[in-house]
Amino acid sequence: MKLLIPGPVEVSNEVLLSVARPLMGHRTPDFEEILMSCIEDLKYVFQTKNDVVIITGSGTSAMDAAIASTIGEGEEIICIGGGKFGERFAEIAKSYGAKVIEVNVEWGSTFDKEKLEEIVAESNAKAITLTHNETSTGVLHDASFVGKLAREYDMLFIMDGITSVGGDDVKTDKWGVDICITGSQKCIAAPPGLAMLSISEKALEAINNNEPRAYYLNLQKYKKSIEKRTTPFTPSVTLIYGLYQALKEIRREGLERRIKRHRTLAKATREAIKALGLELLPREEIASNTITAIKIPKNLTDDDIRGKLKSKFKVLVAGGQAKLKGKIFRIGHMGNVGYLDLVGVIGALELVLKEANFNVKLGSGLSALQEVFDREGV
Amino acid sequence: MKLLIPGPVEVSNEVLLSVARPLMGHRTPDFEEILMSCIEDLKYVFQTKNDVVIITGSGTSAMDAAIASTIGEGEEIICIGGGKFGERFAEIAKSYGAKVIEVNVEWGSTFDKEKLEEIVAESNAKAITLTHNETSTGVLHDASFVGKLAREYDMLFIMDGITSVGGDDVKTDKWGVDICITGSQKCIAAPPGLAMLSISEKALEAINNNEPRAYYLNLQKYKKSIEKRTTPFTPSVTLIYGLYQALKEIRREGLERRIKRHRTLAKATREAIKALGLELLPREEIASNTITAIKIPKNLTDDDIRGKLKSKFKVLVAGGQAKLKGKIFRIGHMGNVGYLDLVGVIGALELVLKEANFNVKLGSGLSALQEVFDREGV
Repeated sequence: MKLLIPGPVEVSNEVLLSVARPLMGHRTPDFEEILMSCIEDLKYVFQTKNDVVIITGSGTSAMDAAIASTIGEGEEIICIGGGKFGERFAEIAKSYGAKVIEVNVEWGSTFDKEKLEEIVAESNAKAITLTHNETSTGVLHDASFVGKLAREYDMLFIMDGITSVGGDDVKTDKWGVDICITGSQKCIAAPPGLAMLSISEKALEAINNNEPRAYYLNLQKYKKSIEKRTTPFTPSVTLIYGLYQALKEIRREGLERRIKRHRTLAKATREAIKALGLELLPREEIASNTITAIKIPKNLTDDDIRGKLKSKFKVLVAGGQAKLKGKIFRIGHMGNVGYLDLVGVIGALELVLKEANFNVKLGSGLSALQEVFDREGV
Repeated sequence: MKLLIPGPVEVSNEVLLSVARPLMGHRTPDFEEILMSCIEDLKYVFQTKNDVVIITGSGTSAMDAAIASTIGEGEEIICIGGGKFGERFAEIAKSYGAKVIEVNVEWGSTFDKEKLEEIVAESNAKAITLTHNETSTGVLHDASFVGKLAREYDMLFIMDGITSVGGDDVKTDKWGVDICITGSQKCIAAPPGLAMLSISEKALEAINNNEPRAYYLNLQKYKKSIEKRTTPFTPSVTLIYGLYQALKEIRREGLERRIKRHRTLAKATREAIKALGLELLPREEIASNTITAIKIPKNLTDDDIRGKLKSKFKVLVAGGQAKLKGKIFRIGHMGNVGYLDLVGVIGALELVLKEANFNVKLGSGLSALQEVFDREGV
């Protein structure tokens, strides 16, 4: 099965083989070396000088940890919505008893800057959260703007960069992201099961002054441990092997080239989709560089497209989530995805659309795709 | 390096190769089949008819989830101590604002039954926690007694079976364990990073009536999802492959034989240790069947024993934790450990002791070891 979903992504054979390495004790110098190499490489990928910690858990475990470790009961937090993951921050904050100010954003759209600043100015929020790249809608939000607001109004900026870090440009320090979060199975192209967070000085102060409810997800423990080159609880040694190898591959490609590759993939996908007469969910200026959300045309169903891509071509793309279920499908182009993968999925999509009696000119999507790569380079 | 630590344990080559399998989408029928096969096999290992759920996280993540999901702020809970992990339950419960009644137990010893019943009778506790096999001291506590008390006084019985499930006898249903917890990297002999919990009807009722603070570790979400053959958050597909293979190997060996093997390993280790003139930390009637805790003799250091085992023989055994640091060392004999491994470690230990000028007769430990296996079968 060809995976073009927003995680788990396909990982390189070298990463697959690395996880098959025999286990080692996690409290040994040999393991510490691997762990600390991951931390150094993660700082490079996060574009940060802050410490980075690794939790064994999904991306959500890190979103939970960020909230639980910094926000006390009854404290105010602003959560920017606009999709399943942006809204998840609000759900988490509520479960910990925070006073949540939700910024409602239409799914597929982005926040209104003036309105957001008004909300911030009127609040006493200790923190503001943003899902940088909203996987459920394929929207890339302006994180640098939120960072600026956070600085101006002295709030913590907690950012979910789960589907942007390692694929798109994430300037953790420059933007002023206090806690930047990512997952192993997305743009970093390692197996799922690890979540990583960078922690700024300001975030650390909030963490140290907070009485967190959480125990396993208490970031103070992770921060203290990583200073001693270890983790507070048994890490998934196996997955750390995979992360180590995946990060070496990112170093080899170079972050700048990797970001450019993802942007070219996204642009090419969008051009192909438009050439096929399909409609993107978000307007192009705010479209994600790691996942493309496409409206399912009238008279066609999710099964006509996704079902057929899977059954006929063994290509797995993602469906819509929650209120977008059955209304969109999403092509993930993150991690190791390249030109050949996109030629494959667009080529398959053309045949699938034709079979569903959608008015499509075979080759038109592929041509549009090729033009972008011809111009931008592979 | 030969691992004789209480996790991560060495896993079979088949398990190592299984985690190198290419990734698949976690919301696909193919993955569901693997996941649900794990659940069925886990029920067998847990000796339960209750549902079992899987969290991506360390064993502690499941201990946290069990407390966070069932105990509300200010509610009473009895936590039986006696070691690092038993006491961890109290720490977790306190962090969630529970009213914790700690049952102090000397490290290396077990709880006093009469005293425990008195404490229970005087309390209004909603739950009682026990670490069945206390890894830090090598003590196996009487879980069936705690289960009986829990039933009699209508409390939830939350049991950490992290280093007993899959190695020693754990009768989840018969003993009345409402939430039984284990980890992947111990007796089950899979890579670290997964935690598993069984949830009784009574536990489920408590979970459904509780307003948990936790989000990622909210068991209600896991229970609801597993009923739909899935997980609430992206599982570590890679680690599930490994768990699947490890559980198939347990099925092949048979749980009864596996338990007997662990008991023979433990008995043989104890006999060898005694024959060498070393002293066990716990008295033998309460000694663990998966890990043996041994006092470091006077005039010898941790480095004389553990350090030399590692540097000269590439054998990794565990040290003492917290207040037992430098006072004991621990030989893990869980998962796939067998006769050859024990001959190796005891044979190495004899030479190490001799080098440290400890009065030891070479071969005496090995003879004692062999006698047990000769009598009990390998």
